[in-house]
Order: sequence, then C-alpha cells, then structure tokens
Amino acid sequence: MKVMGIVVEYNPFHFGHQYHIEEGKRVTGAEAVVAVMSGNFLQRGEPAIADKWARTEIALSQGIDLLIELPTVFSCHNAGVFAKGAISILNSTGVVNYLVFGSEEGKIESLLKAAKVLANESPEFKRNLHSFLKEGLSYPDAQSRALSQLTDLSANELGKPNNILGIEYLKQLLLLKSPIHPITIKRLHSNYHDTEVKGKISSATAIRELITRKGIESARSYLPTNSYEILKREAENGRAPITLHDFSNLILYQIRKGVEIPEAREGIENRIRRAAFISTNIKELIGSIKTKRYTKTKIQRMLIHALLELTEHDNKTFQRSGPQYIRVLGFTEKGRNILKQMKQTASLPVILKPHLQNEKHPATSMLKYDIRATWIYALAFRESSLRRGDTEFKRHPIYLC
Amino acid sequence: MKVMGIVVEYNPFHFGHQYHIEEGKRVTGAEAVVAVMSGNFLQRGEPAIADKWARTEIALSQGIDLLIELPTVFSCHNAGVFAKGAISILNSTGVVNYLVFGSEEGKIESLLKAAKVLANESPEFKRNLHSFLKEGLSYPDAQSRALSQLTDLSANELGKPNNILGIEYLKQLLLLKSPIHPITIKRLHSNYHDTEVKGKISSATAIRELITRKGIESARSYLPTNSYEILKREAENGRAPITLHDFSNLILYQIRKGVEIPEAREGIENRIRRAAFISTNIKELIGSIKTKRYTKTKIQRMLIHALLELTEHDNKTFQRSGPQYIRVLGFTEKGRNILKQMKQTASLPVILKPHLQNEKHPATSMLKYDIRATWIYALAFRESSLRRGDTEFKRHPIYLC
Repeated sequence: MKVMGIVVEYNPFHFGHQYHIEEGKRVTGAEAVVAVMSGNFLQRGEPAIADKWARTEIALSQGIDLLIELPTVFSCHNAGVFAKGAISILNSTGVVNYLVFGSEEGKIESLLKAAKVLANESPEFKRNLHSFLKEGLSYPDAQSRALSQLTDLSANELGKPNNILGIEYLKQLLLLKSPIHPITIKRLHSNYHDTEVKGKISSATAIRELITRKGIESARSYLPTNSYEILKREAENGRAPITLHDFSNLILYQIRKGVEIPEAREGIENRIRRAAFISTNIKELIGSIKTKRYTKTKIQRMLIHALLELTEHDNKTFQRSGPQYIRVLGFTEKGRNILKQMKQTASLPVILKPHLQNEKHPATSMLKYDIRATWIYALAFRESSLRRGDTEFKRHPIYLC
Repeated sequence: MKVMGIVVEYNPFHFGHQYHIEEGKRVTGAEAVVAVMSGNFLQRGEPAIADKWARTEIALSQGIDLLIELPTVFSCHNAGVFAKGAISILNSTGVVNYLVFGSEEGKIESLLKAAKVLANESPEFKRNLHSFLKEGLSYPDAQSRALSQLTDLSANELGKPNNILGIEYLKQLLLLKSPIHPITIKRLHSNYHDTEVKGKISSATAIRELITRKGIESARSYLPTNSYEILKREAENGRAPITLHDFSNLILYQIRKGVEIPEAREGIENRIRRAAFISTNIKELIGSIKTKRYTKTKIQRMLIHALLELTEHDNKTFQRSGPQYIRVLGFTEKGRNILKQMKQTASLPVILKPHLQNEKHPATSMLKYDIRATWIYALAFRESSLRRGDTEFKRHPIYLC
C-alpha cells in the first residue's frame, strides 16, 4: 500500500486542505494518508480554534487515515524545530512513501536546492546569515535573504511561510537520509496572511478571524460540511472557538511571576517582563514587546512557552533528541492496517493512550507537555464544567469505521 | 498621646468594627488608633472582597488614624503566624500603648492564662497537644482541647476564632516582652461563622455572602454609610466583589503544574494535586480535599500560597524573622503626627511607597509577595483594563485630611 504523509494543523480544516489531500493522492497514487498534526498549540504561537480531538474527528472524516499528534514541544516552535519534529515522526513510522506539502510555486527543485544549502550549512551561507542578523533582521528574514544569494528563488519567495516550512521539511529529509520521496503541490490562490475571506478558498487565518468575530455560523460557506458541523457542535458545547486572548490572565501571571522563557536572549526577556507589568491583556502585551527583530509569531511562541512552563533545559534536550513517540489520535480502517504494519516498521514507540510511568524517561518528560497542553487548553473552555485536568488519560484514539 | 492598636481585616467594615473602635477608645481613653490590616489575602485563606486601598479608605473614614499593612506572608496564615506578624508590627512602631481585641467573653485573665501556657510550652501541654493531634484532630481543635485542660476556659470557648486569635496576640506580647497593655472587649452578639445576616450587627461572613449572592445594594443596611458607599463605587468600577472563585483557573493551573505548597505534609500535597486534576473550579477542589484534619480554612490558605507561589524556604524564613518593615497604607492628620513620632521610636523601616532595590534584602523578598498579591488580585477585576501589574509602585499612601 502506497502511503502519503502530510504535516497539518487544520486550524480549521478548509477547502484548501481538502484540495491538498485529493491532489496529493492523485499525484502520488497513494491509497492512504498519514498526517502529523499539531495538538492544541500551534506553530504560530496560538492555541488551536478547536481542540485536537475535534480537529482529529474532522480530519478522519475528510480522508486522513492515520492521525498522529506532533508533540507540543515541536508544534509550537519555529519552522526548523516544527519540521524536525514532524518529519522525524513521519520517517519513524517506516510506512510513509511520499511527503506531500504545499508551496507557493510548486517547484521542488528550487526548494531542494535551498534545503541542501541549509542542511550543509556552508560557510558562505553562515556568513551571509550572520551579517543579516547583525543588521537587525528577524531570523526568518535573514535566512531568506542569505538563501536567496545561493539559490534561484528570491528572498521574497523564500520568505513565504509555506516555502519556509517546505524547505525545512526537505532539509530534515536530507539530514535523516529518509527514503520518503518529497512532492510539492502549488497552493491555490489565497495568501497565508490574508485576514479577509475571499471566495471558497480562503486562508485559515481569514476564516478564524471571521469565526472569532462573528461566530461559527458566519464561516459556513468557507468550510467543508463535516468541518463546519463539528466546529459548530464544539462551539455549542462551550469548547470553541479558543483564542490566545483566552489565556491573557494565565500568561500575564506566568510572566509577571518571572517564569523562565526558553531562547529569550538579548534583553528580550526583560522587555517581555516589563511589558507584562504594564499590560492588561495579551494584545497589549504583544504590542508592547514587538520589534522589527521579534515578530509577532516569535513573541507568541515565547508566550505559549511561558504558559506551558517549558524549561530551557527541556527545550534544548527535546531539540537534540527529536520526538520520542508516535502518539496516535485517530485512525480509519485503513489506518488500523497501517498501525498493524507499523508494529514491524516503526522506530519509535506507538502510544495509543498516554500514561506517565517512569518520570525520568525522555518520552515521559516530552509527553508531560502534551498532557499539560491539554488541561491548560481546557481551562479556556467557556463551559467551565469541562475544565477537568484528567481527560487526557481517559481518552482513546478516535476510530472512524 | 495615648495610642490604641488593633488588628483588623475589615472584610468588609461593618457596625461591629465601628463599635470595637469606639468602645476601645472609651475603655482606654486613647486619642488615636493604629490598625494593622491584612492586605488583599486574608487569614481565612480568601481574597478580600475589595482591595486593600478601598478598605484603607473606609478605615480612615471610620476612625483609624494610621493604617499599616500586615505583609501577605503573615496575613494569609494560621492564627499563630498571623498574630506574630501583626503584634510584632504594632510593637515595632514604638508608639502603641494598648492592644484592644475582641473576644467572646471579654475576660482578659482567662485568655492570658491560656497565652502563658502557649508561650511557655510546658511539657504537659505539649504532651496533651500531641496526643490530640494523633487522634486526628485539626491543629486548632487539638490546641483548644489541650489548653482547656490547663485553664478555666472550655475547649469550646477556646476554639472560637476570636478567642484563638486573642490568645495568640497575648502570647506574642509575652514573647516580645512588649510594653503594650492588652485589653479585650466582649464582642456584640453575632457569630463569626454566621452566614446569614441578623439585624444591624451581622457577621462579616454573612455580609459577604449577601454581597456576592445579591449584589452590594442588598447589604446597605448592614454597613456604615462610608463603608457602603466606597464598596458600591468599587463594585461599579469593576474592582469588587472579589471571591476565591475568581482565582479558580489560576489556582488549578498552579497546582496541576505541581507548584510547591509550603507546610503541605503527610500526603496532603498529593491529595491536593489529585483533586486539582478532577476539579473544574475552586469549590469542587476544596470539596475534594477536605478532611476532618484539614479544615476548609487551612486548605484555602494552602491554595492561596500556591497562587502566590510562596516557597517553603521563604515561608520558613519569614516565620523565623518576623516582619521586616512597617508598610503604611494610609493616615489621618493625627496619623501623620504618629508617623513623625515613629521616626524616633520605630524599630523597623517605615515604607510609604514600595520599591524593590536590593533583591537579596530580607525586606525586599518579603515585600515582593505584597506586590505579587496586588497584581494577582488585580487579575480578578471584572474591568479588565484595571489588570495592570505596576500599580503598587505608583501608589502613595492615602492621606485623609
């Protein structure tokens, strides 16, 4: 059975995602799809609009056969760490033949060339990167500029979020010497950063904006039926939509208390701390911190790390070690067969239901953050009776048959 | 000038408090009143219904001349620690001639006898106390029973909250060899634990219940005009009433994360932790923890300590050292004269406006918790624009002229 792997967030699942699955299957001829999905906290440093279980349910109903959670310590991180987590997991399953990802131009050769530069870290590239960083550019900007001097893509093209991620995926495949074959699909028109819905194919950002401002009903025509219906149910039950604003108090509390923030160097930690004392909510807080160098996304990830109380030590350890488990959130009948196959092929333990046994085991210390992410997320549910902290230990993967 | 000292919480200020000031002045002939008042977190392990500034304003308008804050690390603690903090401060001013406190029977001799037993810690008393604790009684119950065998008061009389506090005050005066002369006033009928208002003199508990259930207007006839008007203004501005329930999320968050809880021995820490995972709010949490030995009040104090992130180390240090400063929240013209006098007499530094200079100074590490208590309290304000964290550094004492 040919299997296609994808990396997703589904925040929320829209027509663009539907197209990506269909087109990927068509191009690769794959019969099954394995997705690695961010859990409750996402790459852009935000909570998901609906929790990972609702999004898993939607994904399974939309053609995903096996859904694996990207551990929180990778999902809410910069493109490099995010990609390392996601691609390592796909590779570790031992069953994935293709990696299919979206990019702006859909040209694999150009992206591969850039990925090779990154993977090899040539002295020339490093020198360029360093000098752009010195000029005060943000890391993604500096990297795009440095890469553009060694590849046929412009800094502008290289700087688009989907290209950045795509290049990082390819870099990880190269570093892992993975047998997975990469394929890129040109994204349908809709800009990642668009905040306004435009026709049927609208960006996830625009759809989220609409939902949080005007309610889930307003987004009906921009979402596949299953996605809409499940999100609507979640909203009715008081579990969605969740936004960063819902964590204002907890984040202000953590930062004012002086919690350690991993990777917050060069005075940014003090800047964040000072901002937390003069701010009354998350929007003010981000506004007070933002600089040219520290993008909103980067700041938001730091705030989520503060919320998760991710320690500098753990953060470093996890980046070195990579993922320690394959946590399955859901599967179809086909997915069940893939899971059976993985008993032979997987190079990481497969977790169907989490339990914290040996506190010192690397998998336990990583899993701890997924469990914490779940109950922290639950504290934001409007329906306060759903704010229990032990749900993660009781939940079985979703089996869509 | 004869000065009378009192220890108060004013949560909220009611007719009983008014009577206490007037009667105290009449009995002692004092011309001025110095009060040590709990800040935002109180002896029973609850937040105050209105913040310390509003309650200071009320107190000054009701006859208090100098209002000193009892540092948070003493105010939200068992009777012994609370009394040690409060009496040490009154003593350290060097200007207080009388300590006036309420008790059930108004008999100073009986209370003094009990206080002497406590201060001397006779082997007989210790033996009795120990055996009652072994029977599984809570600490206050065991102490009352042990005391009753050596004094003329019954365990029931000794166990009443105001008597417990009174005895602890006297014990501290004895230990400090303080020149302050203690006087007790028989409390007007109204039971400390009453939860229903009964006529003009109603318990603070009953009044709080009424306010949180039916709004501030419903408590009008149970409060002196100034107290009512200021509380009403606070409610209108979105700063009151504040209850423990408002800290549900922050407390669940802290405990689920595994924060250290000072003095949580004998498996109670695990019990609290487990309860936090199955509870969705503070009421459920307390309900799941409560045992015969661990009273609601004791549990609530532990929860507030978790919220304040008071460390075991700091908790121990502060209990050994006692208060490190005299923090003035407000004064009248008479109070200003007392403050002048204190320049000669006070044995602790007087703080009019806090600043954190030397991180390692004992006063700084104690003051840090008052500042933290202020901004944590502010996170519960309904009016979210008031949730800043730096107000404590900008506020001058209230001068009522």
